Parts: sequence; structure tokens; C-alpha cells
Amino acid sequence: MTTGVRRRMGVEERRQQLIGVALELFSRRSPDEVSIDEIASAAGISRPLVYHYFPGKLSLYEAALKRASEDLAARFVEPHEGPLGARLLRVMGRFFDFVDDHGPGFYALMRGGPAVGSSTTNALIDGVRQAAYDQILSHLDVAEPPARLQLVIRSWISLVESTALQWLDGRRVPRAELESQLVHDFAALAAVSAAHDEEMAALLRRVFKGEPGDGPFADLAGRLLALAS
Amino acid sequence: MTTGVRRRMGVEERRQQLIGVALELFSRRSPDEVSIDEIASAAGISRPLVYHYFPGKLSLYEAALKRASEDLAARFVEPHEGPLGARLLRVMGRFFDFVDDHGPGFYALMRGGPAVGSSTTNALIDGVRQAAYDQILSHLDVAEPPARLQLVIRSWISLVESTALQWLDGRRVPRAELESQLVHDFAALAAVSAAHDEEMAALLRRVFKGEPGDGPFADLAGRLLALAS
Repeated sequence: MTTGVRRRMGVEERRQQLIGVALELFSRRSPDEVSIDEIASAAGISRPLVYHYFPGKLSLYEAALKRASEDLAARFVEPHEGPLGARLLRVMGRFFDFVDDHGPGFYALMRGGPAVGSSTTNALIDGVRQAAYDQILSHLDVAEPPARLQLVIRSWISLVESTALQWLDGRRVPRAELESQLVHDFAALAAVSAAHDEEMAALLRRVFKGEPGDGPFADLAGRLLALAS
Repeated sequence: MTTGVRRRMGVEERRQQLIGVALELFSRRSPDEVSIDEIASAAGISRPLVYHYFPGKLSLYEAALKRASEDLAARFVEPHEGPLGARLLRVMGRFFDFVDDHGPGFYALMRGGPAVGSSTTNALIDGVRQAAYDQILSHLDVAEPPARLQLVIRSWISLVESTALQWLDGRRVPRAELESQLVHDFAALAAVSAAHDEEMAALLRRVFKGEPGDGPFADLAGRLLALAS
């Protein structure tokens, strides 16, 4: 990463470089195994200089996590065009790319890493969940979601997190299968809720009526019918 | 709770009493709002005497959490008799009783309370999840679960947790509806997995073939058929 010619970096540029180096290291191994010495060495600067930019490992970790959160939230953005199932499937692909790229760091964070319980860390995680929730609502084109729809969306988001964590623990099921399955899980959880509540049923009939015969929701219905027979 | 006649308690008896008093307080309000002074006062002893039995609030919190974990895990135990859906529905009822009784404490713990990140706390939470997982496997009568079945069970457990947390946040959906819905969600997630994998499909056909025509799984099928028509 260094070139033969060294030039002096500005403060903000150096901070951004350190965040990038730290994010790389925090992503590849559990963050509590990464030392400031290692970050300094990877950035090609001295340990005291790292402390000049960040008061301690936690603040550097939080800055790296902030960048990763923004990256992840940006992956949820999808054009409001075409069938919903296909949109969700594309987002799942980008989400699993992120999980794949940041595996150990993502796992440590979500399973109770060193910075867990820090209010900054929790706020960043909640911010990503909220970004996912807002995107889904906007694609469903629902301005004032009933409590049951909120529950379905938030429950499904936690299902996605939990599925990703289990995938990282051994990768025993192909990720493409899980991406497809999570899209189907969304339809299934929504359908269960609709089976209990008329308002949800009406909402889903409106939302799903535009889904094509070869989209993932139709695919699920076909697979379930085949299973039942 | 005190009587006119005071008698001297033994060490273990006093510890158990303090744990009980602390659990009451930690359940009713967020644990970081509960002081040692309050616990001492509720137990009818002095603050220094509390420290004689527990070195600090964290150790008393962990002891209270251990008792609560054992209580919760015990509620998962259900006779291996009758339809599976009805068994799961009874467990859901006892689970929501627990969540109802320990609302603020459960919420604070699972949403990142003061003791989160403590390895003892995390181990207790994981122990309860494992107890739930083991019970489900034993009821399904599967000795060596394939990876996809493990995924369905563990994903569903995280769905139950997330649903309970959302229920506590405003209680806008009746808990009886959620208990029934979670049983249906289990069937739905299993069905989605079975729709992707022949081994899961064969396993589910075996497991669900004994379900009666008026049980929760048949109820779901009926509701979904009504929704689709």
C-alpha cells in the first residue's frame, strides 16, 4: 500500500486512511485480536501517531464501524422498478457480499464483541436496521405501516441477521440458497401475519399482485404446492 | 416480606433471598436503574451486608440472571405427547408469561443492557437458546440434524426473541395472536427450507404427518388457502 515516495498527509486524509486500514484488519479477524501496533504497522506510521488521530482503539473501532455501516446501508438502496421479489433478492446478494467481506468482524460484533454495549456501537447497528426497515417500507409503498407490518419487517430483518451469523459459522449451506430462502421467508412471514389479520391480508394482496409468474414469490408458491402434494 | 420476628439467616439462605429480591427489581425496571441501596432496602438489610454476600452489582445481577435463565429453560420442557403444534403453542404461552413477568429486565438485557458483553451474561443467554434448541430437536425426534434443520430451528429461536422484544415495545398486537403466529412461523420457515431441499422435505413429511386436522399447522394451511383464494 505504500509507495517509494512518501508525502505528508493532511489530518483528515490520514484519519480516513487509518479508518480504512483498521476496517480491513477488524473485518478479517475478531476485533479484540487486532492491536494498535498492528494497525500502526499496516498504515506505515508509528503507534504514537495513531493515538494522535484516535484517542484509543475503541474510537478507531467505532470510526471503522461507522464506515462499514454506511457501506452496508448503501447496499440496501435499490431502484423502485420491476418485481419486488427480484429487488429483494438483489439486496440479499449485496448483503451477503458484505457479510462475506467482513466475516470475522461482523460475527464478533453481532455475537458480542469487545465494543458491544458501547452506546455508539449499538446506535450504529440500530441505524443499519432502521435503514433496512425504511427501504422495505418505501418499496412496499406504505406510508403508515400497521403494527403487524412493522413486526413482520423487523422480525424478518432479525431473521436475516441470524441467518448470516449461522452461515458464517461453517458455511454449510450455499449462500445463494440462503439468499433465495430469505426472500421466500419474507413472503412466508407476511403470509402468516396475513392469515391472522384482514388488514395485513388486504395490504399483501395489493403488494404481491404485481409479482410475475416466474418471480421468487411465485417460485415459493410452486415449491410449496409441490411439497404438499 | 418481613415478619415481626427476625431470625438470623444462613449464608446460602441469605444469598438466595438477595437473588430473589434483586431479580424482582431487575425484572420490573431496567437493571441499570436499580441501585444496591434499593436492593438492600427491599431485602431489609444494610448496604454493606449486601456487599458481604456479593462483591458488586454485576455479580448480583449475574446471579439473578442465572436464576431467571433456569426458570425460563424449565418452561421449555413439555411432555412428548400429542400433536407437535399444540406442544409448541403451550411452550409459547409459558415463554410469553415469562417475558410478561420480566419485561423491562428482559428488554434491557436483550437490547444491550449494562451487563451485556459480560461473558457470563452472554453464556447464560446462549445456554437458554441451546436449551430451546435441544428441546425442539428432541420433540422432532431427530438425533443428527442436517445443517438446514439446525438453521431453521436457530433462526426461529431468534425470531421468537425478536418478536417478544417488539411486543414489549408498546404491546400493540395481542400476545395470544403472536404465540399462535410464532407456531405458524415455525411451520412456514420449515416449509420454505423444505421447498429448497429434498432431505428437509422428507424430514418434514415425517414430522408433520401426525398433525391433526384441527391443530395449528392445519389451521395455518387452511388460513393460507383462504388467503390465496
